[in-house]
Amino acid sequence: NVIFKNFLKPEFNGNIFPINIKSDKVLGVKGYKSIKDVPDTVDLAVIVIPARFVNSVVEECIEKKVKSCVVIPGGFSECGETERENEMRALVEKSTMRIIGPNCLGVFDTKSHVDTIFLPDEKMGRPPSGKISMISQSGAFVAAMLDWTAYEKIGMGKVISFGNMVDVNNADLLAYLSKDPETKVITMYMEGLKDGKQFLKAASDATKHKPVVILKSGRSKAGAMAASSHTGSLAGADTIYDAAFKQAGLIRTYSSEELFDIAKAFSYQELPKGNKVAIITDGGGAGVMATDACEDWGIELAEFDNKTKTKMKEKFPPYCSVKNPIDLTGDADADRFEVALNAVLEDENVDAILLIVLFQVPTLDESIVKRITEINKKSKKPIIVVSSGGEFTKRKIKELEEEDLPCYQTPERGVRALAAMYQYYQHIQKKTEK
Amino acid sequence: NVIFKNFLKPEFNGNIFPINIKSDKVLGVKGYKSIKDVPDTVDLAVIVIPARFVNSVVEECIEKKVKSCVVIPGGFSECGETERENEMRALVEKSTMRIIGPNCLGVFDTKSHVDTIFLPDEKMGRPPSGKISMISQSGAFVAAMLDWTAYEKIGMGKVISFGNMVDVNNADLLAYLSKDPETKVITMYMEGLKDGKQFLKAASDATKHKPVVILKSGRSKAGAMAASSHTGSLAGADTIYDAAFKQAGLIRTYSSEELFDIAKAFSYQELPKGNKVAIITDGGGAGVMATDACEDWGIELAEFDNKTKTKMKEKFPPYCSVKNPIDLTGDADADRFEVALNAVLEDENVDAILLIVLFQVPTLDESIVKRITEINKKSKKPIIVVSSGGEFTKRKIKELEEEDLPCYQTPERGVRALAAMYQYYQHIQKKTEK
Repeated sequence: NVIFKNFLKPEFNGNIFPINIKSDKVLGVKGYKSIKDVPDTVDLAVIVIPARFVNSVVEECIEKKVKSCVVIPGGFSECGETERENEMRALVEKSTMRIIGPNCLGVFDTKSHVDTIFLPDEKMGRPPSGKISMISQSGAFVAAMLDWTAYEKIGMGKVISFGNMVDVNNADLLAYLSKDPETKVITMYMEGLKDGKQFLKAASDATKHKPVVILKSGRSKAGAMAASSHTGSLAGADTIYDAAFKQAGLIRTYSSEELFDIAKAFSYQELPKGNKVAIITDGGGAGVMATDACEDWGIELAEFDNKTKTKMKEKFPPYCSVKNPIDLTGDADADRFEVALNAVLEDENVDAILLIVLFQVPTLDESIVKRITEINKKSKKPIIVVSSGGEFTKRKIKELEEEDLPCYQTPERGVRALAAMYQYYQHIQKKTEK
Repeated sequence: NVIFKNFLKPEFNGNIFPINIKSDKVLGVKGYKSIKDVPDTVDLAVIVIPARFVNSVVEECIEKKVKSCVVIPGGFSECGETERENEMRALVEKSTMRIIGPNCLGVFDTKSHVDTIFLPDEKMGRPPSGKISMISQSGAFVAAMLDWTAYEKIGMGKVISFGNMVDVNNADLLAYLSKDPETKVITMYMEGLKDGKQFLKAASDATKHKPVVILKSGRSKAGAMAASSHTGSLAGADTIYDAAFKQAGLIRTYSSEELFDIAKAFSYQELPKGNKVAIITDGGGAGVMATDACEDWGIELAEFDNKTKTKMKEKFPPYCSVKNPIDLTGDADADRFEVALNAVLEDENVDAILLIVLFQVPTLDESIVKRITEINKKSKKPIIVVSSGGEFTKRKIKELEEEDLPCYQTPERGVRALAAMYQYYQHIQKKTEK
């Protein structure tokens, strides 16, 4: 019911044919007893019936020459019903139809508005359209992340929960998304692999085109056992995964927050052409913490050109620090931020900017957001914003993020995201040199 | 003006006497030209005038036998005006009056409603009353954290930005808060120490009474240099700090989020009596990630008693996992959560519970919050909640946190908080044995 309603939303423009053996009308839409009765070609069938009936419907879909199929229900290999799953595999292998699933949430696409997620809007928000796509081995992970990105207004592209991979697997999806013009960065949640070689080949190819950020769980011995009972994955030795990911150019993360912190930076900003950062702050403490984080992550503080320092010295009161980190201090105004930003953007020694704006500062007026976003539009260097606070800050962050400035609650998270961008820059440089 | 208005708020019950050389009425309240004219004894003077006039007013306060003084303005040693600060030190040393500052935000106390923070409510929220107190070397850090805890509705006790420490220093404040009955956990932000011995003595004493969680920046070489230009701190070799903190029983953190994640757990829950955790989840993936995080942080998965497993097996469908992590799966309802929670709480092999509730699950009705909070009220073991999501989830999290259940966005953050509790439990055990 929820899935069918998703397709009835005004934003979905395709034709929809409900198939139900019992009724000839579903929520006011003419229904059919079998897919074979549908008086049109069918691009996608979404199967949401008990597992034991699924394969006969899959057969009908193949006869109808349906192009693709999402099989939602569980009750296959994950429950020991391996034969039922093998039967489906045999069917799909003989046909040209492709299947995602079974035992999955299926597909959520912010462009075509295909949405096979069976969680209603009240339980799970739908994120706005954007350039971050996601492939996940866990359905619950997809649900939690869609809900969270909706809340945070993080723009998503195509999101796929692929389940038992009877046909389409994560390597196929990776290959597809790497060529999808709507996708700028790919995120993945993985517990284990069935075909490591195929996946790593796909990953190596994908990272030539765009960054792929991965959260691989089942790292620990106990975690691997838990993964095996969850998705039947053989998690394998983590060091092997780690080395293979590195070689393929995947960016590995260790929590969902880290995954999206990094994806957001890739989605909104240009890559840095080096690891020299300029830190601009109106809170000295945050500048110190950012500097620590830079050392943790192999990001270096740029040495400014003398011209850069002079530009700032001429405009700033003497107690401001024009060395890196630039401390505009607690009476900073929007002018000071603008002078500092322009100065470091013009400095050839600077590859990226970490901009720490504590909006609590009383002298900072509302024009600051506009000034930053205008500068960002012209900037070829990535600007990463750090801003900690409450109500007022959250509103300003929303305004900044709507203009493609990625914002982070702590200096550590901002620096982490920047380090991932530099890691990916190095990876593609190495590939181009070869 | 902002500070004076803070004291005019209805929640502040003391008498207030504005001192202003130019006017005999300030915002409708009778004013005095000098503190010496005030017709009453004075507990606290807040000095908010330009630096060059401060010392003469401090002298007057001493003559008036004012008990304590908060000096807000900068313009002292941090700007090279060392002599001005030494003069103040000489004055206060000869008297019984105590001074916090100069160059600070001063004091925010959710009980007495003393609030010397010069940031208005529109710019910085004020958190609700609670048991987390804070001592900070950085004023901007205090402002950002008060604003953020207000937004997150994290209850705070006493918050002190101490500035240049002309008299009262962080060791004094630590000693005070360790005996303050309103404070259950102390958080600190530090860039460097002036008197290491005195501080570590105070820290060792404080951790006998309550947990102290610290964020020490200036860890890296570049960070230490930045700290020196911010607060004039000699950050010193980080390994020395690290060892000293460990010996004193301080819990060290590396970001403001980690600091408050841990403080929240201490504030709301009992200490675990061991490191054996039971993980309960309705999302398999989150269970796997939690298991990984446990291994990272030295938390072990409890081996359940057979009785415990039987209690669950009797009530659960066969596809639920009753081994640790307990996977209630994506069709979990509130009953299942209740059965699992009660079963593991009664199991002697379990010291703590990590409860992962993904509220997106369609079968989970709203009674779940009440069931969890009722069980929590009777529980002697800590319950840590992990819940990722959007609008709906955030509402449920607020309800849970109001009933003292600490909630975390990711399994990693929840496990980190639990590990800190176990670390502190071990520390006090060792102290008691001696």
